Amino acid sequence: MPDPSLSGIIKPEVRQAAAYALTHFEAEVKLDQNENPFEIPRELKERIVRRILERDWGRYPEFVPHETIRRLARFTGWREDGILVGNGSNELIYVALIATLGPGRTAVIPQPTFAVYKLMASILGARVAEVLLNPRDFSFDAAAIADAASQADVVVICSPNSPTGTLLALPDAEEIIGRARGLVVVDEAYHEFSGQTLLPLLDRFENLVLLRTFSKAKAMAGLRFGYMLAHAGVAAELRKAQLPYSVNIFTLSAAELAIEEASVLGNVVPLLVAERERVASELGRRRGVEVFPSHANFLLIRTAHPARSVFDALYSGGVLVRDVSRYPLLDRALRVSVGTREENDRFLAALDRALEAMA
Amino acid sequence: MPDPSLSGIIKPEVRQAAAYALTHFEAEVKLDQNENPFEIPRELKERIVRRILERDWGRYPEFVPHETIRRLARFTGWREDGILVGNGSNELIYVALIATLGPGRTAVIPQPTFAVYKLMASILGARVAEVLLNPRDFSFDAAAIADAASQADVVVICSPNSPTGTLLALPDAEEIIGRARGLVVVDEAYHEFSGQTLLPLLDRFENLVLLRTFSKAKAMAGLRFGYMLAHAGVAAELRKAQLPYSVNIFTLSAAELAIEEASVLGNVVPLLVAERERVASELGRRRGVEVFPSHANFLLIRTAHPARSVFDALYSGGVLVRDVSRYPLLDRALRVSVGTREENDRFLAALDRALEAMA
Repeated sequence: MPDPSLSGIIKPEVRQAAAYALTHFEAEVKLDQNENPFEIPRELKERIVRRILERDWGRYPEFVPHETIRRLARFTGWREDGILVGNGSNELIYVALIATLGPGRTAVIPQPTFAVYKLMASILGARVAEVLLNPRDFSFDAAAIADAASQADVVVICSPNSPTGTLLALPDAEEIIGRARGLVVVDEAYHEFSGQTLLPLLDRFENLVLLRTFSKAKAMAGLRFGYMLAHAGVAAELRKAQLPYSVNIFTLSAAELAIEEASVLGNVVPLLVAERERVASELGRRRGVEVFPSHANFLLIRTAHPARSVFDALYSGGVLVRDVSRYPLLDRALRVSVGTREENDRFLAALDRALEAMA
Repeated sequence: MPDPSLSGIIKPEVRQAAAYALTHFEAEVKLDQNENPFEIPRELKERIVRRILERDWGRYPEFVPHETIRRLARFTGWREDGILVGNGSNELIYVALIATLGPGRTAVIPQPTFAVYKLMASILGARVAEVLLNPRDFSFDAAAIADAASQADVVVICSPNSPTGTLLALPDAEEIIGRARGLVVVDEAYHEFSGQTLLPLLDRFENLVLLRTFSKAKAMAGLRFGYMLAHAGVAAELRKAQLPYSVNIFTLSAAELAIEEASVLGNVVPLLVAERERVASELGRRRGVEVFPSHANFLLIRTAHPARSVFDALYSGGVLVRDVSRYPLLDRALRVSVGTREENDRFLAALDRALEAMA
């Protein structure tokens, strides 16, 4: 309910929006935020910290962090002048929406997906055209998205998508991007776990923007680092909507070393993918549990019981997952991050106990 | 010149905006960004780094960083639910503008001031009503600002103002805030050097928002930390326009320790204020140099020569300052940060040589 006393002070789009909120839960097994359970090696943390100690904390970061961008260019194979770095990929999503949206403008957002896209588009006063995923398997309805995109200012697609784990197929991406009237932002936060990226399309489509993060595969969610790959002209325009100095010197130092050591840090991805498949197949064997194929580091499951009851039972067993049952199409669904083998086993055991108790 | 090929992809407000750009110069004496020349003590940096090493980098920061906010509340005397933290105060300025502006809405911005306010308001599609400072002494024209504010959605005032160093007097602030129709954002980035804050007015005015930063007096520009003080209802609305997890765990750890050690770190403020006054009086003795009284950690000066020539001469003498001559009213003006005593002496000597050569 908007506070009427603030009606002159805060614009109505904001007062009417529901805040993005997350209740804080402590748990021994934390599988609620799709974090990487493998902390980067202590030796690497110490090297980063030694670099940080030698820097002047009282000085602003470089206006353009050339060294970080140079390494990202080498790492991705994309051109330096088409790369923006951000305070998490969240900041770059916001920047892309600010540069394309406003009252009278439209964002296309497939649903269900990461809630922040719609919230930010609404705060900016834009209309949000939501296109439902196919209810059966949560695949993207490419034709419907492309139809909507042909009339819209921006499309935001998360691929692999959270919380469903579904991947946008390359031909579907081509159809959408080719027919879109405006910018197409593809959030590839989870791409390492899928083995697919839309990077090969970037050369051909000036209206395509890819977002990446160090919060998932790269195990640096606490440090807030993301980057954008785009055409140089698009990057220059989007940079205007970005605040100067948005990435601090700590995070830049850490990101630079993480790129240098990509081969070391990348080792955990196949491990997590193998665990995802193991847990999925374990879940598939259970009666009363539906599990959906995932291309990310989490699994979407559904049971016959209210999600809240399953959540509570798991939580009292020390396992924290995400109740996503209020998302469109996701009645009775929960999202479970892939943890270490031991964490996943604890989740499976807790789920078995929960379902048995509810039977 | 807007790139026509991007016309469908990027909205016109952005294409028409000039990017905030800063050319990178290296210099022995860096007096161009109003940074604090006194790096925080090595011992404190090591304590912060030890805390950072013990944290899980792979985990997201707390959704609401309660411990940081608790310390800021104790430090400022303001209520916890009226405090937001941000990735530099820049982020919080953006949040305040996003929550109040859009096409058809108006921001009042006194000029000359920090260029980012106007750039961000323009990117958001708002009209910017600029109110000139008094050309004689760069004081705020409170009546004119209040008149404009009575018709506007937001007012942004930097006090002490950059690049002029002028302070908004308390009665002037009361007039403006009392007559404003919308939000009044006062950026107190430099307040420690003035000995004044509008905090005593905050209880009385629900439409007042104060911004603070750790980039100036607190010598942490590289870490990007800022905070906002506001009424709880206003803070709750503004938080909706803010991205989750905008401050990383490194910066949170550093900010917490900096607040704990505020008495240690605060020591440099009187030193810098004394240096400011010494340099101002030295400059005042020079023929052909006009120096304006400053309440911040920099001085605004004007000579008879083109600012670019003076800048170049200083730079070839190893001293980097800011050419602000393209700001409204600031023909031939330069902004010079207050450095260490030795840095300031080098600046004075370089200026003497420059003026002598140009005489």
